[in-house]
Amino acid sequence: MNELAVTIKGADPVLLRRIRALTVLSTLRSAGPLALTPLAARSGLSRPVAQTVVDELTGTGWIDTAADDTGTDTVRSVGRPARLFRFRSEAGHVAGIDIGAHSVSAAISDLAGTLRAQSRITVSPGDGADARLAATRTAIANAARDAGIEPADLWSVGLATTGVVDHAGRVVKSVALPEWSGLDLGAAFADTLPCALHVENDCRAAALAERWQGAAQGTDDLVYIHAGLRTGTGVLVNGKPLRGYSGAAGEIGAMSALGWAEAPMHLISLPGLGAGIAPEEVAERVFTRARAGDPLAQAAVERFSTALAQGIVALCLTFDPQLVVLGGGISRSADIVLGHITEELERVCIRVPRIVASALDREAVVLGAVRIALDMVDERFFTPGVAEPLAPPQGHARAGRG
Amino acid sequence: MNELAVTIKGADPVLLRRIRALTVLSTLRSAGPLALTPLAARSGLSRPVAQTVVDELTGTGWIDTAADDTGTDTVRSVGRPARLFRFRSEAGHVAGIDIGAHSVSAAISDLAGTLRAQSRITVSPGDGADARLAATRTAIANAARDAGIEPADLWSVGLATTGVVDHAGRVVKSVALPEWSGLDLGAAFADTLPCALHVENDCRAAALAERWQGAAQGTDDLVYIHAGLRTGTGVLVNGKPLRGYSGAAGEIGAMSALGWAEAPMHLISLPGLGAGIAPEEVAERVFTRARAGDPLAQAAVERFSTALAQGIVALCLTFDPQLVVLGGGISRSADIVLGHITEELERVCIRVPRIVASALDREAVVLGAVRIALDMVDERFFTPGVAEPLAPPQGHARAGRG
Repeated sequence: MNELAVTIKGADPVLLRRIRALTVLSTLRSAGPLALTPLAARSGLSRPVAQTVVDELTGTGWIDTAADDTGTDTVRSVGRPARLFRFRSEAGHVAGIDIGAHSVSAAISDLAGTLRAQSRITVSPGDGADARLAATRTAIANAARDAGIEPADLWSVGLATTGVVDHAGRVVKSVALPEWSGLDLGAAFADTLPCALHVENDCRAAALAERWQGAAQGTDDLVYIHAGLRTGTGVLVNGKPLRGYSGAAGEIGAMSALGWAEAPMHLISLPGLGAGIAPEEVAERVFTRARAGDPLAQAAVERFSTALAQGIVALCLTFDPQLVVLGGGISRSADIVLGHITEELERVCIRVPRIVASALDREAVVLGAVRIALDMVDERFFTPGVAEPLAPPQGHARAGRG
Repeated sequence: MNELAVTIKGADPVLLRRIRALTVLSTLRSAGPLALTPLAARSGLSRPVAQTVVDELTGTGWIDTAADDTGTDTVRSVGRPARLFRFRSEAGHVAGIDIGAHSVSAAISDLAGTLRAQSRITVSPGDGADARLAATRTAIANAARDAGIEPADLWSVGLATTGVVDHAGRVVKSVALPEWSGLDLGAAFADTLPCALHVENDCRAAALAERWQGAAQGTDDLVYIHAGLRTGTGVLVNGKPLRGYSGAAGEIGAMSALGWAEAPMHLISLPGLGAGIAPEEVAERVFTRARAGDPLAQAAVERFSTALAQGIVALCLTFDPQLVVLGGGISRSADIVLGHITEELERVCIRVPRIVASALDREAVVLGAVRIALDMVDERFFTPGVAEPLAPPQGHARAGRG
């Protein structure tokens, strides 16, 4: 029922106490508020042991009690009020940040993953790194203010951005944001965000989000394609992002034989689009004309889809994923793209995976960054090094309840 | 020091006893024979607890004692003989099997991974499935006989073969052995090998072997390329084989744009090779002529290497591996192939991984199959479901000591 993965060194005598505390926390997080008897039963503990554990966890601020609306505690009703124990998901907050070419976004969630506040600020691909960092700091400050906390109160932060990101949080290379290449994003936010921070490629974050709340729920082996004027991929293997030895996994778009870089040209080169259209609107216009029956636009869409499909075929042959999720601007036109892609997959693949459009659209990256931040908190729950569950800071965390 | 990964359900009261036993076993397996005091210290146990654990493990046949050649047990020397505790790696045996187009091979190892016997039998690509299965059963019987055990005594078996293998042990498709497609290999060996059996793609097995004993020791992110008249790949991510949702991961060779299928034609089409050469000897002849300075042969090798490199580039962009290992017949000519491949990698890749020739050559697959079998035993050590370490069958296992 509650399966916990723990890594232990030797046979530490505090282990059992730790495991019991984690079991109770995990039970309350997944099952919601419970009275002592069902909590003990679900946790596999005797009632007296469960009592000891909930007393400890109440003392450290991880759980609190609420009156049981449904009646009395049947086992010990005489002279005692009914009590439900509840995981205090408001005991801490995490943030997810998405730094993109056209906008930056920050979202604050509680420990249960419920969003408390979000701020999105429009930026321009031509903005320099300093302006983009300043806009990001403003988005963080806005979201924190709206959630009733300070940025310094955050327990962990996931930060997703476009480009190849190494394991130390440095942007090795970004095609979409050339000024981003070489930037140490972890260091750039060390003052604003003194907590644990993980920098991730945006497509990997989006893949995590689709698995968490989007089109890929329940899927562990997943290829996410960001398709727009640039193409990117995020792959999950056994539910974890594939990062590679230096963080550069998934860069199959650099393979010119696959033709990904040129795919958008099939759309951009359509005659009659008119001058001065913003690049990000070109695709929408072509798809609109294709839907209306324009044969030139339909041919352009087919050429684009076939070009996009080559890389998807390569990824499917390589990973044999359960599911492919198509995200990015093109996903809004999945109705006329997915058919062409599926045809190409059927022509080559040993097993054709299901392919669906993103359910989260442009929110995928920031939500994935929140998921990364939540996973960082979970890792601290479930690994040793902290002898007992990390005690939440009482003052600030309570301020965040309002 | 001894890091164990365990998965627990709830807070089972037998857990601590289990962990202590596993810790002691793991310590003795990695450190070799130890007296009680250093064993207790390395296991993080008190001396009396360690005594209880070794008594239990001696009773169940997991460990035994040997006289300490180095002197007496310093703590309790009065009236007691010095004793060293030793993991009984001969308590059980596992087998690795490689079923290929040109030969089948079976190897038997003890629980420490030391090979006890091996049998290889030559077969022909044209043999039918029945003949290949019969040769395999003979190889298993030969190796078991030479190791002094019965095939039925084996604790676990890894079986590697060419083709796409699904999670149930069925060959979904094999290009090299068409009659193999659709065969349920797990079922075919159910009578001969009544133990746990895992069927794996041969390239994945070879990748595991290179990591265990070959050119990739200490490497968790690894791309293995089998290059010969056919090309295959086996990928390790975080030390584990990438299998994909249906077992078909790594089949990037099916991507015709990469030109892998045609690569050997650059060798075969070299003029002056003479008629009637066995296909597997063609490559050797061309490489020999290239080494001797024949410009036509050198050009053929360059075209072959460049074609082979396209798929390696795609795999490196996708996985960002720490290391690429080149196996198969071509690996014997790594001296004149790797330079061309590295040039192609440097032209395209964000980070160029090291690329080396296999250290195990044609033994890689059968050794990888042994590693798979050993990992199956380890999984039974380190997961619950067995309330305590699996008791080795005393009779047969002891017969295998000789």
